Amino acid sequence: MKTIKISEAVVRRLPIYLRFLNELSKKNVQTVSSQDLGVKLDLNPAQIRKDLAYFGEFGKKGIGYDVDYLIEKIRQILKLDKVIPVALVGAGNLGRALCNYNAYLKDNMKIVAVFDAQENKIGESINNLKVKPMSELNEVIQEAKVRIGIITVPAAEAQQVADRFVESGVEAILNFAPLIIKVPSEVRVHHADFTTELQSLAYYLD
Amino acid sequence: MKTIKISEAVVRRLPIYLRFLNELSKKNVQTVSSQDLGVKLDLNPAQIRKDLAYFGEFGKKGIGYDVDYLIEKIRQILKLDKVIPVALVGAGNLGRALCNYNAYLKDNMKIVAVFDAQENKIGESINNLKVKPMSELNEVIQEAKVRIGIITVPAAEAQQVADRFVESGVEAILNFAPLIIKVPSEVRVHHADFTTELQSLAYYLD
Repeated sequence: MKTIKISEAVVRRLPIYLRFLNELSKKNVQTVSSQDLGVKLDLNPAQIRKDLAYFGEFGKKGIGYDVDYLIEKIRQILKLDKVIPVALVGAGNLGRALCNYNAYLKDNMKIVAVFDAQENKIGESINNLKVKPMSELNEVIQEAKVRIGIITVPAAEAQQVADRFVESGVEAILNFAPLIIKVPSEVRVHHADFTTELQSLAYYLD
Repeated sequence: MKTIKISEAVVRRLPIYLRFLNELSKKNVQTVSSQDLGVKLDLNPAQIRKDLAYFGEFGKKGIGYDVDYLIEKIRQILKLDKVIPVALVGAGNLGRALCNYNAYLKDNMKIVAVFDAQENKIGESINNLKVKPMSELNEVIQEAKVRIGIITVPAAEAQQVADRFVESGVEAILNFAPLIIKVPSEVRVHHADFTTELQSLAYYLD
C-alpha cells in the first residue's frame, strides 16, 4: 500500500466506520452504500466517499461497498491486521474499566500488562491480569513488545508515567489524565479526556 | 453572538485550547501566540488562527491572544458560562471513574445524578452521589433540569438507556458503550468509545 499522509480527522473516523461495518457483517449484510453509512453515522455521504477514496477504489457505483472487503481494508490501514500489545498504568476505576474492554478489542489489540505505583494494588487481579509494580515496567514492556501505553493515573502523576513509557520504548500513548503531557516528537499522543468530550457536546445544546 | 455552523472538528478542538489556556492562566501568563499554541498542541498555527477566527477577532498581530479573554470567549462559545447538569447511567468501574472527574468539571458542568439497573448498586455512594434506581430517572432528570446524559452500561443495555434518556427530555448523550445507539435527530450523540481511540492511535505506529 502506498504511504499517504491522512488527516487526523479521517483517521479518527475510520474506527467508527469499522465498528458499524462489523455490526453489518455480523448480520450478514453484504453491501452498504455511502448513503446508508451517512444516515447511520450522521455524516455527509460525500464526506464518507472522500474518506474511503484515500485508500483506493473500494466502492462500486450503484451497488456500494462490499462490507467484508471494506472491513479488511480498514483493518489493514489501521494496522489492526497485526497483533498490537498494549500496557496500562493506573489500576483505579478507569484502568479497570478499560481492562474490561479487552474482550471488545478482539485478538488484534490487547492490554497485556497493568502497572500501578501503589503498593496495595500490586498483585490484584483485573480481568486475568495481575497488577505489577512500576519497577518492572521497562522489562515487561520490552519482553511483551508493547507498542502503545495507556495512562489512567491522576493528573499529577501523568507526566512521570509518560516519561517512563517513553524510556521503555513505547511508540504511542493514550492519555486519560486531564493534563497535556510532553513527549518527544516521535511518540504519538492522543488525549482521551472525558471533560473535553463533555465540553464539545455542550456546544450543541440550544 | 451570531449563530454560525461550525464543523465538529473545530468544536472538538476548542476544549483542548481551553484546557491549555487554563494552564497558562494559572501560571499568570497573559498572552499567547498561535505559534506557541501550535507547538504545545501539535497543531498548525494557521489552523489555530482559522479555528479561533470563526468566533471573532481575538488575536492581535505580533502580540498574540489575551489568555483570559480567550478563555472567557471559548467558555461562552461552548456554553460553559452556564451551569449544565449531567446524569449518568451505569455505576460500574467506568461510571465511577467519570464521577471522580466531577472535580475537574468545575462549577459549570456537573454529574448531579447516577442511576443503575442492578438492585445491589442502588444506594451506594460515589463521590457524594447516591446511586438511584432507573424507576426514578424521569423524575430526577426533570427536577434537576439535566441536559446531558452519559451512558456507561454494557453494549447490550445501551440502546434501552438511550431511549430512557430521550423520553426524559435529555438534549445530548455521551455514549461510552461500544455500540452505535439510535436517537431522534434533535438529540446529539457523541460516541466516546475507547476502542476507537486505540484503533486510530494504531494508525500512527510505523
